[in-house]
Amino acid sequence: MNYYNKLERHAKKLSRLGHLNAICGWDQAAIMPNGGAQARSEAMAELAVISHELATASYLENWFTEAETEELTPEQRVSLVALKRQWMMQNILPAELVEQQSLTGSQCEHAWRSQRKTNDWEGFKTNLKPVVELARQEAAIRAQATGLSRYDALLDIYEPGMTSAVLDGIFTEVKSWLPQLIQQVEAKQATEVTIPLSAPFAIEQQQALSLDAMKLLGFDFEHGRLDISTHPFCGGVPTDVRITTRYDENDYTSALMGVIHETGHARYEQGLPQQWRDLPVGEARSMGIHESQSLFCEMQLSRSESFSRLLAPMIQQAFDSKEDSLSAENLCLINTRVKPGFIRVDADEVTYPAHVILRYEIERDLIEGNIEVDDIPAIWDQKMSQYLGLSTLGNFTDGCMQDIHWTDGSFGYFPSYTLGAMYAAQFMATINKEMNVEQLVSQGNLTPVFEWLHNNIWDKASTLSTDKLVEQATGETLNPEHFKKHLIERYLNN
Amino acid sequence: MNYYNKLERHAKKLSRLGHLNAICGWDQAAIMPNGGAQARSEAMAELAVISHELATASYLENWFTEAETEELTPEQRVSLVALKRQWMMQNILPAELVEQQSLTGSQCEHAWRSQRKTNDWEGFKTNLKPVVELARQEAAIRAQATGLSRYDALLDIYEPGMTSAVLDGIFTEVKSWLPQLIQQVEAKQATEVTIPLSAPFAIEQQQALSLDAMKLLGFDFEHGRLDISTHPFCGGVPTDVRITTRYDENDYTSALMGVIHETGHARYEQGLPQQWRDLPVGEARSMGIHESQSLFCEMQLSRSESFSRLLAPMIQQAFDSKEDSLSAENLCLINTRVKPGFIRVDADEVTYPAHVILRYEIERDLIEGNIEVDDIPAIWDQKMSQYLGLSTLGNFTDGCMQDIHWTDGSFGYFPSYTLGAMYAAQFMATINKEMNVEQLVSQGNLTPVFEWLHNNIWDKASTLSTDKLVEQATGETLNPEHFKKHLIERYLNN
Ligand SMILES: [Zn+2]
Ligand SMILES: [Zn+2]
Repeated sequence: MNYYNKLERHAKKLSRLGHLNAICGWDQAAIMPNGGAQARSEAMAELAVISHELATASYLENWFTEAETEELTPEQRVSLVALKRQWMMQNILPAELVEQQSLTGSQCEHAWRSQRKTNDWEGFKTNLKPVVELARQEAAIRAQATGLSRYDALLDIYEPGMTSAVLDGIFTEVKSWLPQLIQQVEAKQATEVTIPLSAPFAIEQQQALSLDAMKLLGFDFEHGRLDISTHPFCGGVPTDVRITTRYDENDYTSALMGVIHETGHARYEQGLPQQWRDLPVGEARSMGIHESQSLFCEMQLSRSESFSRLLAPMIQQAFDSKEDSLSAENLCLINTRVKPGFIRVDADEVTYPAHVILRYEIERDLIEGNIEVDDIPAIWDQKMSQYLGLSTLGNFTDGCMQDIHWTDGSFGYFPSYTLGAMYAAQFMATINKEMNVEQLVSQGNLTPVFEWLHNNIWDKASTLSTDKLVEQATGETLNPEHFKKHLIERYLNN
Repeated sequence: MNYYNKLERHAKKLSRLGHLNAICGWDQAAIMPNGGAQARSEAMAELAVISHELATASYLENWFTEAETEELTPEQRVSLVALKRQWMMQNILPAELVEQQSLTGSQCEHAWRSQRKTNDWEGFKTNLKPVVELARQEAAIRAQATGLSRYDALLDIYEPGMTSAVLDGIFTEVKSWLPQLIQQVEAKQATEVTIPLSAPFAIEQQQALSLDAMKLLGFDFEHGRLDISTHPFCGGVPTDVRITTRYDENDYTSALMGVIHETGHARYEQGLPQQWRDLPVGEARSMGIHESQSLFCEMQLSRSESFSRLLAPMIQQAFDSKEDSLSAENLCLINTRVKPGFIRVDADEVTYPAHVILRYEIERDLIEGNIEVDDIPAIWDQKMSQYLGLSTLGNFTDGCMQDIHWTDGSFGYFPSYTLGAMYAAQFMATINKEMNVEQLVSQGNLTPVFEWLHNNIWDKASTLSTDKLVEQATGETLNPEHFKKHLIERYLNN
């Protein structure tokens, strides 16, 4: 066996341990009784130790050196690059730093859960400071190894190839038109009358509706399930994708839209190429591309007028009601309602980028050392006022303490959300050139649309860089114009 | 850290990998969509390889030698014996033999699933012969290492300390009275009129009833769940016990009695001492003792008259019916109906031992080399006629091809079922001396009964030999008289 094959076998072994981790993690979140928590975390920690030992085995460096001199097919060479990237990612940080980060991060996150409720910024910032300090150390090590700037070195974990120079350009442009667009949409919607939904919506009926929506969107139930968890997610493995949701009797739309969102993630996973299963090159391209698939389903498709007409009868049937509030027109109004608010996860499609840009700008400056933790609330308030016209002065709960990301040191992730929205709009624009999506949706025939995603995105996995992937699929690299056009088209010109 | 502590840490590591295996195995049986099967078995095989490498690591022999010379507490010394037994069990067989057995066994089992349906003994025996051959090799190796006879060396895997000499004595005695007892019971029951249950019984109602029965029997839902699987089992880990059942709309009793049975297994697991968690000394004592706990619930408790009176209103409420067929009297008649039949898993409490003794006698002679695979059908038929008055001539499906055990080489397991029934009767006889069980059951207060089991059985785990455990609990070692008395009392003297 040559060294490349040894590396493949090693990666598959790691991936299979990842499979066990994914299933036991899903179980922990969705199924496990409380009393099982202690033993479960011990068992999963043991698995993490074994996986880490494998991933950082000392013989690997030599295997890579040897493999790079071997005669490989072009495909194997691409796979080798992905293998090496994964290996470097797992070996770059000293074990001590990782341990400190894990400890400090879980302390900060744990305390945050109660501190957020009591608006306790003073308490929270004491925990956040060491988290930021360690993230800066991590960024410095990664920057050293990659030649990137510190923040870019963290961004690279989630969005390989993306830089803050590019993001700055994109986001500056967005900021030049977004606040005005939001005002225009608000003015336009001020005259629209939305009929409020009449709760309650029984959980079983919501569940049946969710499953129907998943079927409509082509979720493969031979390779996945829908279950319930407090924090909805898409987990499991590509051949067995576990998505979760939570049901609110007062509002079925949160579960339904959540399920549609996770179904987008799930179809990407289910559509990854069999050929590269269990290898890094066969994994999803980036967090932004992953989010583009969920937002394609949730935003591009599901909040469109034609999709509302498709969903309305399903919703009416699920709840056995023909009320006016469940008419296609009213559902479409509800699904496209724009209102600036404090909370990112509750934000609509139009205001969402403002939340992301604000966080990006803060975390970039924080990691680069241009601002400190103490500066966050004031900057947050100033940017919220500027982008969304809302003040968070003294309101930490609904301000800079609302997200989990920073508590455990995940800096560099936020841009993926808006990159995803932009990629989704760009994909839809291209698909619309090749077929009449509105007509297909009206016919309930989404197959051609998903086939396009399958051929152009899912099947490529990580064989191409994000830029190449997007260019091959759409004829150009990331072009935020499509997102802007989409927002104007849907929210102003309809 | 001394060597004993090293061994403890090593065993806990193995146990935690076992945890992952238990949860992923449960998931596979209860939850997993079909399309996930291939990747799941690859992931679990990877885990098995890692566990096996750990369990057979070459440094362990030295650790044991060193640990045995260390100053240990009496409890540690008991634990060390259990650690060493587990280690020897995992190291005694050459890897090649294990691999061959796994291959041959799964081939035989796989083919059996269709061969049984077509009564294809000729096809089946071709696969069974190499399985028996390898089991004989295993038995020879184990006999060599333990000084036991070949069959006893296999029996020892499931029932440490039990021998065929003891079993021969017990079973010869049982055979001297059982066939006659069966006839007497049949004659007595010939005049009883049972009202047939009126199906269908809705699955959700059966599920609610099952959960109620589990609550009544003290199942701890903070540390376990009930789910559905094709083949019901009790899995998971002591802090998170997963029992499963399957529902038949035509007959709720199979699921209910199955759940009560598995709840007995589950309470044993849930009641194992926290102090020894993840160590061999903290595991269940033996398969027979495990079965004694399930049969205590299913047979000793649930099929009693007083328990039928307790269950009847629950059943009537679950199915919202006051029909005569659901009266306590009728349910008790149904639950104690005796009828010799071909199939072990469908057998009643009275005829069950005949099925076990037959299998024990055949597998003992097979492993000792006194008979061959070709001889099985004739012996089966002769013993079925002798013990139960039924002929299986030419009927392999309902004869020697009905069980899965031999197909994958699990010889030595069958006695545990009847040992369990006997231990259960002996425990109940002792408990009845200390309290009025019938009265407690009538009051729906099972706590004192389970407290006895907790203190005398569960909490002891594997700290005592089976003989010592039973002697400390009941004042004597295994005494099958209690089982005989129980059968006569319940089936003739009522
Ligand atoms: Zn998402
Ligand atoms: Zn059992």
